Amino acid sequence: MAEKITKREVNYSDWYNDLVLQSGLAEYAAVRGCMVIKPHGWAIWENMKSILDKMFKDTGHVNASFPLLIPKSFLEQEEGHAEGFAKECAVVTHYRLKTDPNKKGKLMVDPEAELEEELIIRPTSETIIWNCYKNWIQSYRDLPILINQWCNIMRWEMRTRLFLRTAEFHWQEGHTAHATKEEAIEETVKMLNVYADFMENYMAVPVIKGVKTANERFAGAIDTYCVEALMQDGKALQNGTSHFLGQNFAKAFDVKFLNREGKQEYAWATSWGVSTRMMGALIMAHSDDDGLIIPPRLAPLHVVIVPIYKNDEQLKTISEKADAIIKELKALNISVKFDDSDQAKPGWKFAEYELKGVPVRIAMGMRDVENGTVEIARRDTKEKSTIPNTGLGVYIQNLLEEIQQNIFNKALAFRNANLFELNTWDEFKAQIEKGGFISAHWDGTAETEDKIKEETKATIRCIPLDSKEEDGVCIYSGKPSKQRVLFARAY
Amino acid sequence: MAEKITKREVNYSDWYNDLVLQSGLAEYAAVRGCMVIKPHGWAIWENMKSILDKMFKDTGHVNASFPLLIPKSFLEQEEGHAEGFAKECAVVTHYRLKTDPNKKGKLMVDPEAELEEELIIRPTSETIIWNCYKNWIQSYRDLPILINQWCNIMRWEMRTRLFLRTAEFHWQEGHTAHATKEEAIEETVKMLNVYADFMENYMAVPVIKGVKTANERFAGAIDTYCVEALMQDGKALQNGTSHFLGQNFAKAFDVKFLNREGKQEYAWATSWGVSTRMMGALIMAHSDDDGLIIPPRLAPLHVVIVPIYKNDEQLKTISEKADAIIKELKALNISVKFDDSDQAKPGWKFAEYELKGVPVRIAMGMRDVENGTVEIARRDTKEKSTIPNTGLGVYIQNLLEEIQQNIFNKALAFRNANLFELNTWDEFKAQIEKGGFISAHWDGTAETEDKIKEETKATIRCIPLDSKEEDGVCIYSGKPSKQRVLFARAY
Repeated sequence: MAEKITKREVNYSDWYNDLVLQSGLAEYAAVRGCMVIKPHGWAIWENMKSILDKMFKDTGHVNASFPLLIPKSFLEQEEGHAEGFAKECAVVTHYRLKTDPNKKGKLMVDPEAELEEELIIRPTSETIIWNCYKNWIQSYRDLPILINQWCNIMRWEMRTRLFLRTAEFHWQEGHTAHATKEEAIEETVKMLNVYADFMENYMAVPVIKGVKTANERFAGAIDTYCVEALMQDGKALQNGTSHFLGQNFAKAFDVKFLNREGKQEYAWATSWGVSTRMMGALIMAHSDDDGLIIPPRLAPLHVVIVPIYKNDEQLKTISEKADAIIKELKALNISVKFDDSDQAKPGWKFAEYELKGVPVRIAMGMRDVENGTVEIARRDTKEKSTIPNTGLGVYIQNLLEEIQQNIFNKALAFRNANLFELNTWDEFKAQIEKGGFISAHWDGTAETEDKIKEETKATIRCIPLDSKEEDGVCIYSGKPSKQRVLFARAY
Repeated sequence: MAEKITKREVNYSDWYNDLVLQSGLAEYAAVRGCMVIKPHGWAIWENMKSILDKMFKDTGHVNASFPLLIPKSFLEQEEGHAEGFAKECAVVTHYRLKTDPNKKGKLMVDPEAELEEELIIRPTSETIIWNCYKNWIQSYRDLPILINQWCNIMRWEMRTRLFLRTAEFHWQEGHTAHATKEEAIEETVKMLNVYADFMENYMAVPVIKGVKTANERFAGAIDTYCVEALMQDGKALQNGTSHFLGQNFAKAFDVKFLNREGKQEYAWATSWGVSTRMMGALIMAHSDDDGLIIPPRLAPLHVVIVPIYKNDEQLKTISEKADAIIKELKALNISVKFDDSDQAKPGWKFAEYELKGVPVRIAMGMRDVENGTVEIARRDTKEKSTIPNTGLGVYIQNLLEEIQQNIFNKALAFRNANLFELNTWDEFKAQIEKGGFISAHWDGTAETEDKIKEETKATIRCIPLDSKEEDGVCIYSGKPSKQRVLFARAY
């Protein structure tokens, strides 16, 4: 049986950790900062992957696989990139262990197996991929290249949190090459929209699309686009980024092509990624003190049926009724589990499936069988209702859609109620303590941005794409400003 | 345009390399011994993964994800395992790079960021997984645990070949824990059968199921089961293994459980894996001097339609006819591409799709439109035929099944024609030079096995599961023997 989960209002951070551990999503591994993603967590991630993968393929992308290890010298090629990632690199220096002659049964690094050049575990793959593209691109006819990779990467973080920030994590990284600047920018924005579509319509997490300030840009990018979401504790979470890389990597790796005019030109690049961090966003956006709330479109299991019985004969009668329901649900592609295990009481099972976030629970007792009904409980609202068991398949199908919508609407209402358009520094300081997004004028300087961060821990999450021109004065410096940007404290 | 592929009879090894490179499956990466799996190769691997993944889930397994890095001390826990893998381990010793103060723009390993304990990149995950299972298993009620992981692993090989042997490769590794020895052995054999089913019915590669001799066992296993296939050059290829690990890892990591009798007992383990090596088997079993031959059940693209036209008007007329065919094929889940690119002539396209192994090619010219026909070319036999375009969908569906069967039958006939039951050492020595499997008596000693290997480079591939008891004398030592085993030179 699960241990108690800290309540959100007591300690949001403990609630999150308890929930991830208790619901069987993940746990810390024996290796510092790394995690084990357990079957329940991995099943949700697999659903995310398979939906996103289809979206990528529908927009013309193909998958490929590039090496885990990158020569140190590759990282040096693009200066900004090197500065951004060098401090977080796990470094492979040797390729062999040997028996320790001084300690029986122990192994030691074989000093004779030192690599000539150190290899780093990829923190992202721009460098090794652009080194390949150099050989793949000669003419505009070879462009665009629209490749995505699903893989694990490693960034040695000092402070880690399950899913949100771990040394190793799983992600996809799209790396595209184009013949023109316009096409590359169009791709960058297209993939940002794919991400937003996925997050809103599958994760049920409303997002704000925007552009990062220079301070917050990806190391090596000209522009970083992002999607920002709001968690229940009022902190923002960057859920995905899409970078316009200009010709930076083409220049670093000398990737030129013959353009339509017969001239040599550097190729234009984008890269875009989302990671297992989205699992953190999914959990923190929707779940409650009883456990996970998973939107049906991502739930590994949609429906659980729990029989309530006193003896084997009753169980047999209920099972027969349940079989028909299971068949009906499966025919509609609704995943369903009949839990007739005799190792736990119904009440324990109810709590367990609530903890795991199964969207719909059906309970069936002898009275239900007699009346031709079932009891249905929604995970999102916890409402229970007694429903005739005829036409149950379509009823559940509609209910799952309703739950999906309801989860999104609730998150959207919360986000909108916590988005504040503010105009004075006092208001700003007061609100930031309480959380939420603050839309405010900013003078456009990194200096002001840094000072605001220093004083309030708030960062500019993005310059929203739908931000309209509006004359105003910077909330901090009082200098003139042309548009509002979005501030928040963030994960 | 593709360069020339070496013919098989000239140099089989060069043919293989040329084919992998020219058909766009993979290429060597900038990192020694590692490869880039290109979109065409990765698409085939994705098909393999998705079919196998369903087979694993249908047999009750779930996926999870364990860390890439393993503490060196974990490897030391199981002695045989450590001996087997220590020599091939990539070792992470540091977690940070820094700017080299003596060389502008260069990075160096930060000596202050040395790890207290070295980490190795997983060569396989028994140790880190059993370290987790220790916390997951308390009682027989927690068993069985049936977990699989799809991931990348690393074994530092000195001589590498694309797909067949690379430092980094992709695979799946199943790791199960059981309450009884019998159940664990049953699982080991069950997964061997899943592999054999996949290889024969999807890869169209006939396999022989067997058990390895002690010499060839997985490091840490009690018994290693395997599936062995024969390549066109007469060499054998081990296509997958399933290990009964006994209680070795449970003892190494102290994984005990309370059994039904209320006593503490060590858990029983299996592990089983197949890798991107299967890509090598797929290529070498079927392909020819013109390119890949991919069984339809694994082909990323089933059908290509090439229009033959002289002007835009003709192309328009043909495209309209093709549209109807495409719709019909897609409705039957047959993937199809219409290649109306004007960058290449039909003859070039024909060669290109043959190289890439598309099972069926449809050519459509104006005469076909007038006659209500299409020209169909099979990749496997290269037969061409002119077919009415009504009911084409079902025709192609049947044809794809026929091609799948034909590819398997051809490989089976080849394998059977190259499986020799021999009884004298002279015959053995003569045959092994020509290739093929040799079924021969063996006295059961590692000494004889080693000598045969030394003299002929042949190894015992397996003791076939269907091998019947039969009195005989060892083909090498003349000592008495109770059954035949399978010898071959192998990849």
